[in-house]
Order: sequence, then C-alpha cells, then structure tokens
Amino acid sequence: MSSGAQARGGAAPIRVGIVGGAGYTGGELIRILLRHPHVTLTAIHSRSNAGQPLYKVHTDLLGDTDLVFTDVLPTEVDVLFLCMGHGESKKFMEATPPAPQVRIIDLSQDYRLDEKGVRALIGGKPIVYGLPEYQREAIKKAAHVANPGCFATAIQLGLLPLAKEGWLEEAYTTGITGSTGAGQSLQATTQFSWRADNVSAYKTLTHQHLREVRQTLKALNPLVEPPVHFVPWRGNFTRGIFVSSTVTCAAPLKDIQEAYRRYYEGHPFTHVSSEPIDLKQVIQTNKCLIQLEQAGDKLVVHSAIDNLLKGASGQAVQNMNLMFGLEEKAGLDLKAGSF
Amino acid sequence: MSSGAQARGGAAPIRVGIVGGAGYTGGELIRILLRHPHVTLTAIHSRSNAGQPLYKVHTDLLGDTDLVFTDVLPTEVDVLFLCMGHGESKKFMEATPPAPQVRIIDLSQDYRLDEKGVRALIGGKPIVYGLPEYQREAIKKAAHVANPGCFATAIQLGLLPLAKEGWLEEAYTTGITGSTGAGQSLQATTQFSWRADNVSAYKTLTHQHLREVRQTLKALNPLVEPPVHFVPWRGNFTRGIFVSSTVTCAAPLKDIQEAYRRYYEGHPFTHVSSEPIDLKQVIQTNKCLIQLEQAGDKLVVHSAIDNLLKGASGQAVQNMNLMFGLEEKAGLDLKAGSF
Amino acid sequence: MSSGAQARGGAAPIRVGIVGGAGYTGGELIRILLRHPHVTLTAIHSRSNAGQPLYKVHTDLLGDTDLVFTDVLPTEVDVLFLCMGHGESKKFMEATPPAPQVRIIDLSQDYRLDEKGVRALIGGKPIVYGLPEYQREAIKKAAHVANPGCFATAIQLGLLPLAKEGWLEEAYTTGITGSTGAGQSLQATTQFSWRADNVSAYKTLTHQHLREVRQTLKALNPLVEPPVHFVPWRGNFTRGIFVSSTVTCAAPLKDIQEAYRRYYEGHPFTHVSSEPIDLKQVIQTNKCLIQLEQAGDKLVVHSAIDNLLKGASGQAVQNMNLMFGLEEKAGLDLKAGSF
Amino acid sequence: MSSGAQARGGAAPIRVGIVGGAGYTGGELIRILLRHPHVTLTAIHSRSNAGQPLYKVHTDLLGDTDLVFTDVLPTEVDVLFLCMGHGESKKFMEATPPAPQVRIIDLSQDYRLDEKGVRALIGGKPIVYGLPEYQREAIKKAAHVANPGCFATAIQLGLLPLAKEGWLEEAYTTGITGSTGAGQSLQATTQFSWRADNVSAYKTLTHQHLREVRQTLKALNPLVEPPVHFVPWRGNFTRGIFVSSTVTCAAPLKDIQEAYRRYYEGHPFTHVSSEPIDLKQVIQTNKCLIQLEQAGDKLVVHSAIDNLLKGASGQAVQNMNLMFGLEEKAGLDLKAGSF
Repeated sequence: MSSGAQARGGAAPIRVGIVGGAGYTGGELIRILLRHPHVTLTAIHSRSNAGQPLYKVHTDLLGDTDLVFTDVLPTEVDVLFLCMGHGESKKFMEATPPAPQVRIIDLSQDYRLDEKGVRALIGGKPIVYGLPEYQREAIKKAAHVANPGCFATAIQLGLLPLAKEGWLEEAYTTGITGSTGAGQSLQATTQFSWRADNVSAYKTLTHQHLREVRQTLKALNPLVEPPVHFVPWRGNFTRGIFVSSTVTCAAPLKDIQEAYRRYYEGHPFTHVSSEPIDLKQVIQTNKCLIQLEQAGDKLVVHSAIDNLLKGASGQAVQNMNLMFGLEEKAGLDLKAGSF
Repeated sequence: MSSGAQARGGAAPIRVGIVGGAGYTGGELIRILLRHPHVTLTAIHSRSNAGQPLYKVHTDLLGDTDLVFTDVLPTEVDVLFLCMGHGESKKFMEATPPAPQVRIIDLSQDYRLDEKGVRALIGGKPIVYGLPEYQREAIKKAAHVANPGCFATAIQLGLLPLAKEGWLEEAYTTGITGSTGAGQSLQATTQFSWRADNVSAYKTLTHQHLREVRQTLKALNPLVEPPVHFVPWRGNFTRGIFVSSTVTCAAPLKDIQEAYRRYYEGHPFTHVSSEPIDLKQVIQTNKCLIQLEQAGDKLVVHSAIDNLLKGASGQAVQNMNLMFGLEEKAGLDLKAGSF
Repeated sequence: MSSGAQARGGAAPIRVGIVGGAGYTGGELIRILLRHPHVTLTAIHSRSNAGQPLYKVHTDLLGDTDLVFTDVLPTEVDVLFLCMGHGESKKFMEATPPAPQVRIIDLSQDYRLDEKGVRALIGGKPIVYGLPEYQREAIKKAAHVANPGCFATAIQLGLLPLAKEGWLEEAYTTGITGSTGAGQSLQATTQFSWRADNVSAYKTLTHQHLREVRQTLKALNPLVEPPVHFVPWRGNFTRGIFVSSTVTCAAPLKDIQEAYRRYYEGHPFTHVSSEPIDLKQVIQTNKCLIQLEQAGDKLVVHSAIDNLLKGASGQAVQNMNLMFGLEEKAGLDLKAGSF
Repeated sequence: MSSGAQARGGAAPIRVGIVGGAGYTGGELIRILLRHPHVTLTAIHSRSNAGQPLYKVHTDLLGDTDLVFTDVLPTEVDVLFLCMGHGESKKFMEATPPAPQVRIIDLSQDYRLDEKGVRALIGGKPIVYGLPEYQREAIKKAAHVANPGCFATAIQLGLLPLAKEGWLEEAYTTGITGSTGAGQSLQATTQFSWRADNVSAYKTLTHQHLREVRQTLKALNPLVEPPVHFVPWRGNFTRGIFVSSTVTCAAPLKDIQEAYRRYYEGHPFTHVSSEPIDLKQVIQTNKCLIQLEQAGDKLVVHSAIDNLLKGASGQAVQNMNLMFGLEEKAGLDLKAGSF
C-alpha cells in the first residue's frame, strides 16, 4: 500500500485532493500519485461513486489501494486537482471557493485563456498556463495552474523553439489522437466496432486547442502571430498523440536542430531525437520526443506524447512538482509501455 | 468453383495471367478475378510456389478454387497483370517480351513516369497511366496500363478537380497507410509487436509517389506546377489510406463542392460526401470517398481509399474493364467490410 | 445501383423486406442483398430512421443505393427478415401477423428453441431451426426459419460430425468473439478505450446459445445428451468467432477427419482444413473452417466463422436461398477480407 | 539518469549484468532495473549491438540512460540475468562458467525441469524453479533461479490452490497470448498484416510449458498427477496472457474462494478478484489476477498476467529481490497501463 508517502527531506508529505476522480485523467492522476514519494492522497472526490473503493472504477487498482471515493469536498489539502469536464471547473470554483492556502491545478480548458490579455484569477490570484517548457519559472511561483490541452502540448512543444528563434511564419499541422482523448462518455465515435481499424478527421481547422497555441505563440513574439492550420484525426489506439507540422524554414537543418537542443536543454521530459521517432516510444511516459526533417525550404517537425501523461495527468504532476519545489521528475520516471 | 466465367454477351471470357501471384496485390487480384463475370484465370505465375495450390499461400481461398501456381510463363492470355516488386516489371518485360496481342497491366512503379515528357513503351506501344478519373478515354484505347500508386491515387483524387479549375497553388498533405502497403517482406516496421498501437512518419517530403502526382498536375495545367508537401505516416491497421490536404482556396465552399461533383459525375467509384467520412466506409471496396471543409481561405480535402483495391488491385481490374470495353464496375461491386 | 435484380430463369425477383434494418445484422443483410442476383429490396423498416437514406446509418452504402428507411410495415414482400433485438421478434409477430404467403426469417433467438419438444409456430406453420449443415432438407421445405446464434453456429459445426458418429460424450469449449456480436448499443464493454488490446470472459458456462447446441445434439442422438462446458471470451477485434473444443475421442485421427469430410461433403460453405486455420481466413465470407488435432485420446476441434455472416446475416441469406430453391451460394460468394 | 542506485540501508547496490540485453525480455529488464532503488546496471551484453547506446535498440530509453551495450562478458557483478534463446543459456553456462559468488537468474527454459527428479546444477549449486507463489522460501535461499515460462506462470497461479487442497483432478485450459511472447525474430505469424484482428491456435495439447506445470503439480501431490489439456491461442495484442481453466470441483464456491485467498495471502502480486477480470487490469504490472466462477460441479478459473512482467522480466526481478533479501516489491510497484 503505497498511498502514504515518504518524507521529503523531513518535510510533511503534500496532501492532495482530486475532484472528478472517476474519469480517465482522474484515474491516471491516482495511479501516479499513489507511487509519488512526496504525496499523500487525502481525498478522491466523485459524487456518483462515493463510498466505492477506487478499484471498482479504476479496476487495475485492485491490490494497490483500499482508498474509497468520497462526496465530501476536500478541504484539508495542500493542492486540489480538478479533473472535471470543460466548463465544470469554473462553476465549481465559484460555488466552492478554495481556502486561501489551497493550490489549484485545473485539467480542464476553463482557465487556459487570457480574456483580453488578462489572466484569469482564482481567489484573487492569477492562474498560470502550465507548460513547463514554455514558462517553468512562472509555474514555480504560481499559486494556481491551468494544465494545457493534450494536442496543444504536442503542437507547442513542436513549435516553441522555432517561434523563439523568429523562424515560424505559418504551420500546417496534422495530429492523430488516441481514444482516451475523447473521455469516458459513451459516444458513437468511441465504440470499438466503429473505431477499430478506422481513421477520421474532426474539428478540422477549428480545434479549440488552437486558441492556447495562438496565445503562447503571440506571447513569444507579439509582432507576428503565426497561424497554425490544424487537422486533427481520430486514431485506432487508446493512448498517444503524434503530430507533424510542416513549416517554411530555410535555415540549415543543423542550426535548427541546435536551436531545439538548446531550447530543451535542462528540460527533463522533452528530447530531440536524431533518429526517426514513433508514437510508442513515449507511451506510458511523461516524455515528448521531437524529430526534425527538412527538404528544400520545408521543415517538418514531428512530436509525440502520451495524451494522458504529458498531455494531461503527468504534466499536471510535473506542474505540482514545480509549484512545491520538488524535483521536476518526482513520481514521473515511468517505465515506458514499450509495446 | 467460380474460376470459369460467364460469357460476355456471347464473347469468350478474357484469359488472364498474373505474374507474381503470391504477394499481397497478386492475392487480391485473384480474389477479385475468381468472381469476375467475364474472366478466366488462365495462369498464376509464382516461381517459388510453383505446383502449390493457391490456398497454400492465400489461405482464405480454401474452398474457393483448386488452381495451382505455375512457373511456366503465361502466353495464351489476353491480359497479363504484373504484380512484382518495383524494378522487376521492366526487367521481366525486357527478358520475356509479351506477344503483340497481350495487354500488360503493371502494378509496379516501373512505367508510371514519362522520361523527359515521353511515355514508356512496351513492344513499341505506349503504356498509359491508369487513373480512370483522370484519363478514362485514354485508358479505354490503351494497349498497356501502368497502375497508379496507392498514395498517389488518394492524393490525386483529392486534388484533381481543384487543379482542373485552376484553384490549386500548393498543397500540404498528410496521409496514413495500412501495413499491407509495405508488402509481404519481413521487416522491423511490419512486425506486429512494433506496429500495433503505433504511428510513425517515413519518407517525409520525399515519397516516390509524389512524382506521379506532380506529373499529372503538370499535365492538367502546364503553366503552373503546384508543389505537394507530403508527410506519409504508417498506421496501425492493415488496409486503407486516409489523406488530408490543406490548400489555400477562397472560392465559396459551395462552388468547390459543385466543381468536385461535376468532375466525378459518371465516375462510379469516386463520391463526394456531404457528411464527415471515415476510413472504414471504403475498406474492402474499390471506392474513393472525398469530403471538403473550409475555414477562411483554407480548404481541407479528405480522401479515403482501400490501398489494396482502389489503391492497387481493384483499380487494376477497373483498368482492365475499361481496356476490354466491359462495364467499369464489372467484378468490382464489392460488399464493404463495414467493421 | 444494383438494388434491382436479374431475372432467375425468367422468374420474378424475390421481394425482400427487412424489419430492424438499422442494426449491425440489418446492415449486413442490406449489403448482401443489394448485390444478390435474384432479389429486390422492397422495404427496409426502421422506425427511428424513417425517411433517411440508408447510407446515413450504414455509411459505407454511400454511392451504392438511394433507398430510404421506411416506417410502413412491408406487406408486398415474399420474405421478411427480422433483425430486431431478442424478445422483439415474437412481440412483432403477434402484433402484426404476416400475410399467409410471407416467409419469415428471424435472426433473433425468439424462435430457436422448441418448447417441450414442440416447434414454435408463426401463422400456424412451424419455424424450422436454420442450420443448413444440420438439416438442409427441412429448411428447403420450411415456411419460416429461425436463424441460429453466432456462437451456436461455430460450436455446432465443430461438433456435429462427432455427434452423428456417436463419438461425442462431453466437450470443453472456449470461444472468442468480435465486438459486433454485442450489437450496436453503447455499453462500457463496447467502448474502444476498454476493449482495445483486452480479453475478458462473460456468461461463463451459462451462455444462452448452449440451449440451441443442446437441442441439436439431443435430436441427433436422443439417448445421450453430451454436455458442452463453454467459456465465451470477448476479443479485441470487430468480426469473427474462433472456437476450440476439447473432447475425448480415441478413434484414429484419420477416421475422424474422414467422418468430418463425409459429413460436410456437398455443403458449400463448411470446409475441413488439413492445415492450421486462423480467424481471418473466413472474415468477410460465409464460410466455416474446421481443423482437427489429436494427442492421445484427446481431440481438439477448431472452428472459425464471421459472426455477422455465417453467424448471422450470411446464414440468413443462405436459408433464404434454400427456401426459395435458389443456388445455395447465390449472392454469398464473397471476397474474403484477407487482412 | 537513474541507472545508479540508492543505498539499501547502507548496503552497496546490487551489481547486475544482463546477457542477451537486446531482446524483448532483456529490454523489459533494463526498463525495470534502471528504476530499481537497490540496483546498479553494470553490464548489458549483446554481441550484435556492442558499442551502441541502449536506446538504439530499445528506443523508448532515449532520455533515460546513456549506457551502451558491451560484448565483454560481465564478471564484476552480483547477479547475472540470462535473456537468451532457449538452448542458449546452458551452452553459455558451460562455455563461460560464472564465478562462484555470481548468482544466475535464467529466463530461458533450459533449467526449469528436473531430470529424473534431480534439479539441474550451475557451478555445483542447484537452480531453483522461481515461482514465488509456489516456493518463496526456497527461492530466498537459492543460489540460482530458473524463471518460469509465461503460460506456465498463468496456468500454475490459476491451479495451485486447487492442487494444494487436493481438489484438482484434471484441467481443460485455454490461454491466449500477446505477440511479444513470440520474441523478436521475424516470422510470418508475427507480421502485423497477418496477426492484426486475427486469432489462431498453436502447439495444441503439446505446449512445452506443460512440462513445468506438470512438475509442480506432481511435487504438490506425488500420488496424483492431474493432466492439463491446454490449447494455446495467439491473440492480436502485444502484451498479456489470459487463461481460463475448467475443472470438476463440487466444493462450494465460497470455500474455494476462501482457499484461494488463504493461499495467496501475503503474496503481494497475486490477487483474487470478486468481480469479473479483464486482461488490461494487469498489463504493465507484475500482478496476476484470478477470478473463480462455478456452475454445477464445474469450476472455471480465470487468470491474467502481463507476459513480459509477471510472465518473464518482472518475475525475474521479483526472484532477485527474494534472493537478495530485498522487499519483494522493490522496483516492481509499476503503474498499470490502464488502457
């Protein structure tokens, strides 16, 4: 039973609450945090499953923990992860404002976007957009964090160094996502009989994650706002996002690769590969792998993440680690699925 | 045993030979032609399997036919399908020139490209590029046909109407293909343990099918040669190709859809869908489905085919039908796999 | 548009109605019958989709037919296929008794079992259990047919020759089924995220199809009633059933194989393979393949079918062919999916 | 870089060598041991990859370690894992006998079976069959361990409590395995195009793991030797084994469940579930889950493991932990894959 936690240099373990613990991202958070060396899982909230052991919902937890879901809102916690549907987080924060010392990490899209250039607030404190490779220092000092979207993470990690160098004018991006990206609700497009061996496009050129991407790219370079034309596909696998962005960039490939390596130096989860990458290299890990290819003045950037880890719950824990001054990789040095 | 054939209005059945009948495209040809109403399968050539019943190699044929592979080159045939590896067809034609009355349909890439604007010849007669939606009339009169590549088929069917209207300047294209596209040889990237649940890119911006696409687009409009920037992906399914091309086109979507409908009118296998399409709609069929979406001045064209049928053996039979004056759909009205 | 039909030796085409045409088995029936040489699809009934083109529900039919669903009950038909949920067929027959000349082929389980040794009736006429390899002659004369269950078909075809020879005492059977066997309703166990890469057991030792199997085995040999201990598994594929039955049978393997070949001689869809079989040999076909292996006095019988074809809609059309004096394979010589 | 190791209560880390580190089980061992708190990976031997970084072969290790393969045989180690092909371990031990203090954990089948009731020896010391749930105390004292087969593990864990109670007379067992069980060599049955969506049987009634199962069952009760009739299937997934054994056992289910719970009490990885189990509950973990169902006097035992973890490399580390007096779960509290 590893739901307790070891001391962190004598400090008390961080008390964690999760709201919406019965969904896919909630479950993945629980799996990580049960094994996190500096955390105590204090309360897993789920109205519909209150009183049930966690393993009745997340059945792989059988033998891992005897914790049960609760419908009492967690108060005696240091940090609260919000794993509810989009739109629910804001309502929840308004209905039950957190105590001043409680930090919020929100996995929904509710707080990701500035309104008219102004950050959203929770309890009077700004909520920082939590992409560590973009603004790690801001996250370290943040009271609250808005965890990025999964596609937004993969696309941004593929484009950030280009944007920083001023080499990004426009991107043509295609991405494919696993079924867990669609969440747990029963839909025609999440049926096995439909999705197996199938590929399809959705939200062509209009995916909501583009707004996050645009906001970051604009912040990096207020003068230009490079458009990203994004075609998202549904893939016939459960986990993962693979993205290829084609851009015009005549700089020598060597220089571009060097710029990427420089940008990601010291970032423990994002790596530039000199070999071809594939999706399964990152599955079950918090990594992002990036590969660069060039022909003439066209550059293609491939990036791959696990949508539930670097694209959601893993990045949320990475943000928690940063906010609480822990080692960035604590609890996140996960064995790759590998097959 | 349907390996014989019904008369076609009293005419004798077409005698068909296949060279390289043990591979994936050879097998698919056999499956189609065994059920084709106007064909007799005269000889299935395979040096390595000579003397073996077809069902020892294509095991699903058990109960369908007692035909055996032969290593005697077929001569008493009306048409010869070449299903060998790339580079092998040309060698084979040079080593064993066909009798003057034998028509050749080549599924390799050996004869697809003009050399310096001049069509390749077999036995002194030009070999026509066999994309019926591009030049059906030429195919009808052709002595020989070079069957298009699978990705080349999907990309061209997605772009031809645009090019014809003069609306195509440049295309950013991503496509994903099933494992059968890689053929039967044992490779690391065709291993189940590697490919299952995986996605990866290959031949980024350099796929050999781009040459066919370029040749067609140039022929449609000699003044411009719209570049196609193509990122091919390997998918974790066995059959099918799904392609999305993003282009700049400010014409009203309605007009574009109308142009596509007009272009494909009378073509029995290619259809424009007003609903979202998915890959499985076309699997096990000879169809190509196309869907158009627009945001601002960006247009996305989705196209989907079965790589072994419309992308290879099905289109080869469609070409045979045209060359021999049969109904274009003869033997090709296949039940969709549907799941 | 092949929804019309060719004459059958001058006879008028068979007019077919389908009730419950929006489900998986209904869709598969439509796909087959649109291409059946002796059939006219007269009416496809679906209350919830009335007025919609078929391809709005069965999207692969785009380009195949312009037929629409109707909510008017088909009357001017020669045969009515019932593709409704279990329990619905009986209610439907009672609420809207068919005209005397209309033949019924029911794909539900409602009429499969005798009650106290007496066959169920529709309109005063007995409804025959439609497993052609068991009682083809009775089906030819039947007014109505109850189409067997998918697992029941695979298990019986594996055991019938043994039972007939008096060699069957008891069978230990495991079978695995594709997701389409669970129908179209949205369930946790039909979600892609759950079912992909997963295997699980259900209805262990209690599957309802055992009743059909038992009824047939008892009819073959009234003195003994060999128990079948059956463990059904859910597989991570959409189509197909693979069954292995282990029995005690000390007869020489050669004699057993001979008995199987004798039994299935003249049955066009069921074949005994001397090579190892695999599921994909039969997918997208109406075949059943059988393989026999022996070690000591234990015999293992493997059998494989496509659950939607030989296990449902294909067998239903096979029964129709027999009832109407057509060739047994008419419309059912389907190209295997092969991959 | 976690390839170093934390002290274990002040003790020096265990120095580990791996022979055959480029295969599937070798890679999985590396992934586990890189994160094991009490281990230093000293040498990863692979003749064909010597000099290459590990991540060139196990590409998911990019960013995890800079270790390289060596072709120098590891000598300065405390324990040597042998991950070579069947037959290779024995040859290797004979050609290069280990130093007296080096412990051997062999993942091949070379040392699993007694010869005429006598345990095999390495360097004069017996090599113990390493199934902890069967003989944990013997493993703790063992110099060397022969790691069980994957199917053998799943079958034995399903049957051991029955055998111990004297309730096991005979078992009819079906099991399905992922593609990684077939290893890394390129074969027709490991091709994606063949294996996707496919099921097939192999080694029917003759699988080599039956010998291990038989040896254990006989040791538990020398008077009877309950036969296990085993039908192995190949599944279309990469990881995992799901087994269902049907036995005759008229004891009340409650008593049987109680006997299982008693048997596995204190074993940290094997759990009896009162709910239906499915394969994915155990994937990416070292667990075995067991479920019991009864109808009349027939009992069905379902068991599920990850073939590369509890069925190979995970169990090998579990054995190492026991041999070196570490906590049994050290390095093995792995996050489930969950999807």
